[in-house]
Amino acid sequence: MPIYLDNAASAPMDERVLEAMMPYFTNKFGNPSSIHNYGRETRAAIDKARKTIADILNTSPSEIFFTSGGTEADNLAIFSCIHTYELSHVITSPLEHHAVLHTAEELQEDYLDFELSKVEVDAQGALNMECLEALLANNPISLVSLMHGNNEIGNLNDIERIAALCKENEAYFHSDTVQTMGHYRFDLQKLPIHYLSASAHKFHGPKGVGFLYVNAEAALRPMLYGGPQERNMRGGTENVPGIVGMAKAFELAYGNLDQDKTHIVGLKERMIAQLRSRIPNITFNGLSGELDKSLYTVLNINLPPGDEYEMLLFNLDIEGIAASAGSACTSGTQIGSHVLEAIGTNPDSGYLRFSFSRMNTVEEIDKAVEVLEKVLKR
Amino acid sequence: MPIYLDNAASAPMDERVLEAMMPYFTNKFGNPSSIHNYGRETRAAIDKARKTIADILNTSPSEIFFTSGGTEADNLAIFSCIHTYELSHVITSPLEHHAVLHTAEELQEDYLDFELSKVEVDAQGALNMECLEALLANNPISLVSLMHGNNEIGNLNDIERIAALCKENEAYFHSDTVQTMGHYRFDLQKLPIHYLSASAHKFHGPKGVGFLYVNAEAALRPMLYGGPQERNMRGGTENVPGIVGMAKAFELAYGNLDQDKTHIVGLKERMIAQLRSRIPNITFNGLSGELDKSLYTVLNINLPPGDEYEMLLFNLDIEGIAASAGSACTSGTQIGSHVLEAIGTNPDSGYLRFSFSRMNTVEEIDKAVEVLEKVLKR
Repeated sequence: MPIYLDNAASAPMDERVLEAMMPYFTNKFGNPSSIHNYGRETRAAIDKARKTIADILNTSPSEIFFTSGGTEADNLAIFSCIHTYELSHVITSPLEHHAVLHTAEELQEDYLDFELSKVEVDAQGALNMECLEALLANNPISLVSLMHGNNEIGNLNDIERIAALCKENEAYFHSDTVQTMGHYRFDLQKLPIHYLSASAHKFHGPKGVGFLYVNAEAALRPMLYGGPQERNMRGGTENVPGIVGMAKAFELAYGNLDQDKTHIVGLKERMIAQLRSRIPNITFNGLSGELDKSLYTVLNINLPPGDEYEMLLFNLDIEGIAASAGSACTSGTQIGSHVLEAIGTNPDSGYLRFSFSRMNTVEEIDKAVEVLEKVLKR
Repeated sequence: MPIYLDNAASAPMDERVLEAMMPYFTNKFGNPSSIHNYGRETRAAIDKARKTIADILNTSPSEIFFTSGGTEADNLAIFSCIHTYELSHVITSPLEHHAVLHTAEELQEDYLDFELSKVEVDAQGALNMECLEALLANNPISLVSLMHGNNEIGNLNDIERIAALCKENEAYFHSDTVQTMGHYRFDLQKLPIHYLSASAHKFHGPKGVGFLYVNAEAALRPMLYGGPQERNMRGGTENVPGIVGMAKAFELAYGNLDQDKTHIVGLKERMIAQLRSRIPNITFNGLSGELDKSLYTVLNINLPPGDEYEMLLFNLDIEGIAASAGSACTSGTQIGSHVLEAIGTNPDSGYLRFSFSRMNTVEEIDKAVEVLEKVLKR
């Protein structure tokens, strides 16, 4: 099996997650809206899953809404908030995931009438907090949608500080936490935030399921109409096995978070050190080379300008190393990365994103660096 | 295990479907947007699934769009069509699923400006085709959204005739085929229709996945923005195991359709005959008692007015028979059924929906009738 270092695109499912899902693929098949025993047992499973997630986030189950993934969660938060409050101003950044950026842009173009501002970022992708403060101060009530951890360059935004600023300015705050949920702790009794989006397959859960946290005081408005599921907020028969699997993955992620984090930080440190010593003039994009300012799961490397990079990812793949050049959503070509473009990277440089999980080993890191060195020397 | 006669709410997954999904829960975990081997193998699986479904429907894979289920498919078709063509008139019926009715009503209330007409239905729920013709003739270009088979009373609408009428009047036609896809054959080279919605768990596939057929000449407009998945029409990492499972379930459904149908028709006929002989004054709601005019999977029974029905479903459940009183989406209480209300049923009558699948047996039907007789005699 090739070495998998693309966990930010999708993380392998934990076998204990599959085990938890199995009964819901076999004998526990009822529709949760049915009142007979088959229905009641799947209804109970969903309730339990919601409570598991809410407990870990130190919040109420009534604030957790299941979706088909992170993208739907982002769309739902942004649509709900702008539409319900009839907001005339939205603040985001050029480094957001397309599930946020395109949603805001398309809703604006389509039928919602608001101004869209983007917080300035520097060459490392750090948010200009003074710019955010000015945007908040000089505008009517805004929705701020700023991610927690960037999927491409790994930058961590200070969501506590952003949340405090939003609170001060009476703004609504949504954070795309798709890369940090399951990897960082959240205490929603302490963090004043309105919406958080999560995707199960980023923390070793199944694809096709996610959730949106919606603070009890924030508006939610359905995008998908139908039955009364999710307290009338999201129609459609619940993806019971997916929801059960997501909760199990969430539980496993937080049950061993510190040890897993220590292990992964070790992998990232080792890779940085080895790359620095073996690949000349290597640098790291965004803040991904700084351990305290970036996701411990993501390292985005920059190779000096040259014309030998076109086939780099393919060659790594042939040699058994699965990596990415940007987000998976831009098909792995560096050309497509709006994030790298927004921080002004040189199009002639080489870009690679390695992203780690608790399932990776020291040996895999060593092998990946060895292969990269070999491929670059050709 | 209780006898399961609620297949219209959710049908048990076929074990061959689970088998097909398993590799995508274990070693084939790549994000289909990643370009390395892990990504390419899941991309190929999605392409293959799309082709499997398209081939069975005798259409092109480019006309099949994967969604999180039937509700999303219904929403997407209705939203896309009305919004893109700026339609000022939508025709539906009072018997549609809430994923159609609520969507049309909410979009109208919310921000789309159109008139909403409902085709009249008689006491058996049959559509008044003259009413439909008049609505089409006396209005500008319309969207017609009429289901193929009703989930509660089983009525089959003549979608060939409706499609022909729509074509004649240059109207767009969407049909919620959630109850018929996987149970009836469709030849999309012959049926002039713009949109069809399907849900995998209604044909022994997994929950949380469905598809929308969109004719190449009909508009599609995204509701969920994000990455370029589904040819830019539906953002979000694809639910690979779900899609693979749905295609497998679809293949199995059509691979043995005639034999399965014969078996299920036999079960329904047997149940009708036994109920008629053993339960005094029993009748059947809608057209569900007429085999050629209703879903062979659904039988909706009507018990003479009385006050003993409040606990009927619960008592059946206790005795090991899982049935429903309406659609699963209305929590199984007859009070909630907008369909039974629309055809003017007596609120004091007793209502039960039995719905069958290829997995049911003659013995189960006999047992269910026996138990019902016993429960009613108390």
